[in-house]
Amino acid sequence: MLNTNQNCNIGFVGLGVMGKSLALNLADHGYRVAGFDLDTHKIQDVLNTEAAERIDPSAEARIIGCSDMKEMLSHLVKPRVIVVLVPAGKPVDAVCQSLIEAGLEADDIVVDCGNSQWTDTIRREAEYKEKFKFFGTAVSGGEVGARFGPSLMPGGDANSWKYLQPMWEAVAAKVDKNGKPIESNTPGKPVTEGEPCTAYLGPNGAGHYVKMVHNGIEYADMQLICEAYHLLRSLLGYEPEEIGKLFEKWNQGVLNSYLVEISADILQQYDQKTGAPLVDMILDSAGQKGTGRWTSISATQMGVPAGIISESVYARALSTLTGERELAAGKLTADVESGEIAAEDVEKAIEEALYCAKICAYAQGFQIMRAAQKEYDWTFNFSDIAKIWRGGCIIRASFLQKIADAFDENHELENLLLSDYFADAMAKKQTGLRKAVVLAAQSGIPTPSFFSALAYFDGYRSDVLPANLLQAQRDYFGAHTYERVDAEPGQKFHTFWQEEGRPERKA
Amino acid sequence: MLNTNQNCNIGFVGLGVMGKSLALNLADHGYRVAGFDLDTHKIQDVLNTEAAERIDPSAEARIIGCSDMKEMLSHLVKPRVIVVLVPAGKPVDAVCQSLIEAGLEADDIVVDCGNSQWTDTIRREAEYKEKFKFFGTAVSGGEVGARFGPSLMPGGDANSWKYLQPMWEAVAAKVDKNGKPIESNTPGKPVTEGEPCTAYLGPNGAGHYVKMVHNGIEYADMQLICEAYHLLRSLLGYEPEEIGKLFEKWNQGVLNSYLVEISADILQQYDQKTGAPLVDMILDSAGQKGTGRWTSISATQMGVPAGIISESVYARALSTLTGERELAAGKLTADVESGEIAAEDVEKAIEEALYCAKICAYAQGFQIMRAAQKEYDWTFNFSDIAKIWRGGCIIRASFLQKIADAFDENHELENLLLSDYFADAMAKKQTGLRKAVVLAAQSGIPTPSFFSALAYFDGYRSDVLPANLLQAQRDYFGAHTYERVDAEPGQKFHTFWQEEGRPERKA
Repeated sequence: MLNTNQNCNIGFVGLGVMGKSLALNLADHGYRVAGFDLDTHKIQDVLNTEAAERIDPSAEARIIGCSDMKEMLSHLVKPRVIVVLVPAGKPVDAVCQSLIEAGLEADDIVVDCGNSQWTDTIRREAEYKEKFKFFGTAVSGGEVGARFGPSLMPGGDANSWKYLQPMWEAVAAKVDKNGKPIESNTPGKPVTEGEPCTAYLGPNGAGHYVKMVHNGIEYADMQLICEAYHLLRSLLGYEPEEIGKLFEKWNQGVLNSYLVEISADILQQYDQKTGAPLVDMILDSAGQKGTGRWTSISATQMGVPAGIISESVYARALSTLTGERELAAGKLTADVESGEIAAEDVEKAIEEALYCAKICAYAQGFQIMRAAQKEYDWTFNFSDIAKIWRGGCIIRASFLQKIADAFDENHELENLLLSDYFADAMAKKQTGLRKAVVLAAQSGIPTPSFFSALAYFDGYRSDVLPANLLQAQRDYFGAHTYERVDAEPGQKFHTFWQEEGRPERKA
Repeated sequence: MLNTNQNCNIGFVGLGVMGKSLALNLADHGYRVAGFDLDTHKIQDVLNTEAAERIDPSAEARIIGCSDMKEMLSHLVKPRVIVVLVPAGKPVDAVCQSLIEAGLEADDIVVDCGNSQWTDTIRREAEYKEKFKFFGTAVSGGEVGARFGPSLMPGGDANSWKYLQPMWEAVAAKVDKNGKPIESNTPGKPVTEGEPCTAYLGPNGAGHYVKMVHNGIEYADMQLICEAYHLLRSLLGYEPEEIGKLFEKWNQGVLNSYLVEISADILQQYDQKTGAPLVDMILDSAGQKGTGRWTSISATQMGVPAGIISESVYARALSTLTGERELAAGKLTADVESGEIAAEDVEKAIEEALYCAKICAYAQGFQIMRAAQKEYDWTFNFSDIAKIWRGGCIIRASFLQKIADAFDENHELENLLLSDYFADAMAKKQTGLRKAVVLAAQSGIPTPSFFSALAYFDGYRSDVLPANLLQAQRDYFGAHTYERVDAEPGQKFHTFWQEEGRPERKA
């Protein structure tokens, strides 16, 4: 099926799960793909799919397999666009080198669609500038997303974007005019209407950075749902199925989201082998692949308070210590209250708590990006970011439309919490969060991310914090100086704490 | 005063505040110091001090000033020991290069006593191996500590330690047989009895790492004290002076520590200008120099739950947003309860909360070091670490003797919380922590580190966490698999969540 006409729109290096899915998605939308993988079985696997075949026998094949990169390049219209979907790290650079050797030209565009760290994308963009245009596009939504409509987060050379835009917009997830994802899961029947979940986010690592923050928020989202489940189960003795049904109800309201939806589904499933709720047969030890950690670390490096995300990362880490926790459960006595609690009140409180904590977690996520754009010289459109997360990705939720609205209303919004809509939501529902925290503390149920969310909200809205004492301590032992409330900002004062007398109180 | 006999025990490069103080401390203990600084005024400044002079006019000077590194080296007995006290980063490498050029030999020992990041110390130790022995020693206690007795945290070539040990033990802070610091602040009258606050901690970066964790714990310690102050002030309306007096009382009990002591002192001081409590004239915006951040990041990278330390770092970051917080205070409505509270109960609860949270913060700090020793191939003696923190450093506290005891009792202790002593303390006092969290949540007072401490305690002692739901979510959207409670550890399972039927409940 060799074809040396330059009539393919896009090349693929790497046809594993994600590469294959995205290639088929492009083919569904009428783009012709030239694919290569070191593993020829993977090439054959793609070619065997229906989507890859000619729809009309007189037409050309939608996907062709290539035996090397040179052949792949020969099929592509110029400037060539080549998607690289290989494991993050060294393989990406190895592919770039091979592509250069295969004859890549300066205007050609290599798009890294893997889970690369944004710093690598920044480095590569600069490093390969003379040889070709290196472009990053983070893909969210896993295998199903890539196949039928992912959320795509592109960042790279602004001029190259025009070659990618039509294809990216075609294959991305779509939302309707209310911001709701349009269902799409039929091969060969792509969704062509609706607003696409992709937008150019900025140069070099901008797309990969935004995707990382997406994942950090996802960690928090998941942990908060787990804490809500834990509270309902421990406080009210609800079985998983009951909680699943309650989550289904919550999913009709402001909490509507993919993660609440699948949690509801999970909790209502039973183990085939034992007949027990399936969730009870699953070991409570959570894995992580690193993006949550990166988000937490990036926030910490830039000095952005991101406690909810960090506590969610730590909660996973703590969960893996199953042996130690068992030991500790035997050794550490709980001294807890458990008064009378009306189930209805508790349910309402926890629903409100989940909503408020979620608002705070997203607020932190957007604050991280706000700091990052200064750090890396990007200019984010936060409304766009919220919009492209409305469909295709793991944190898709109707909630994101409200975030987009808030940033549309005020592009310079300093914090999501300061928008009318979310300030109002917090005003009305914070009692639920307070109550959930109180119940958790009294009953000994660990809810680190609920706790952190409330502390963040109360800290952020405090015009006076006890950091004055802290700064005094620093000045006391380290002469670090302090500013005075009645002096010009930036003017430094130092007290010789141990030498001064203590005047009698004057007031 | 040039003297080319090799009769100086130790050389100094860098005679700023810390270098000068440490050099004078060594001189007080009878060691002869050859000092150099690029700034000749600093050399003269040291020479002008009493400690530097001959005590007996027939004897040689205790400290001599050198006009270059070569001259300095010519005064030193071999193997030469040279302390470098210059700003962390490039200046350290620059000094190393200059010392090589000045004729350093392979057995000579260069000791970096600055605030270097442990990774730099690891790198340097390897990089300079052939040229000389690079040794790290972190110094805690600020100017006063360095002058009269710091806590010294050495790490480096084990063989070189024997040359440093007598000097380090001489100048370090000392504690009596009950583990209490022996007061020392008179030039020329060094403390020579007691147990020195220094011990060899391990190769290359071990000392600088331990010091970093010390600082991370210090961040938590300071933040917790501030939260206690904030609660007392907000809930009970106490004035700073009253809180200071209460802290003085607390300082007689299990909370006895330098930081509680200075906080008590600070809170009882008044502003000379306005007559107001001095703390009220200090802007509530806390600075940070990075070591807290490093600790948090290192913990996150290794997957060690360190929420209390991280929340303390974030609390400082949040405090700096004074403008935003003011805006938020106007915009974000608080919906809080404030029932009747007996002052005595609140005082007791907060005292207990501070103690429990402190235990948890130290537990996290030691867990970080426990992970680091695996990461970097060190073998820490945790009892030694607790012991060398009993005096000289900022977190010195009688509490550290209890930590040393716990690790002496069981060198393999998996977590401080699992020692009889601290498990018992938590059993008896956790109600105070629970009560403080409840009061803070109900009243809208942000106490992120108290919150995080309670969540850590309750999480650690939970044999069941909701990570089973989380792992199910990961398997649902990303096919990340899970382990089953009834299968062998490590065996992976995957559910085709959306394809399975939902059997009727069997139980």
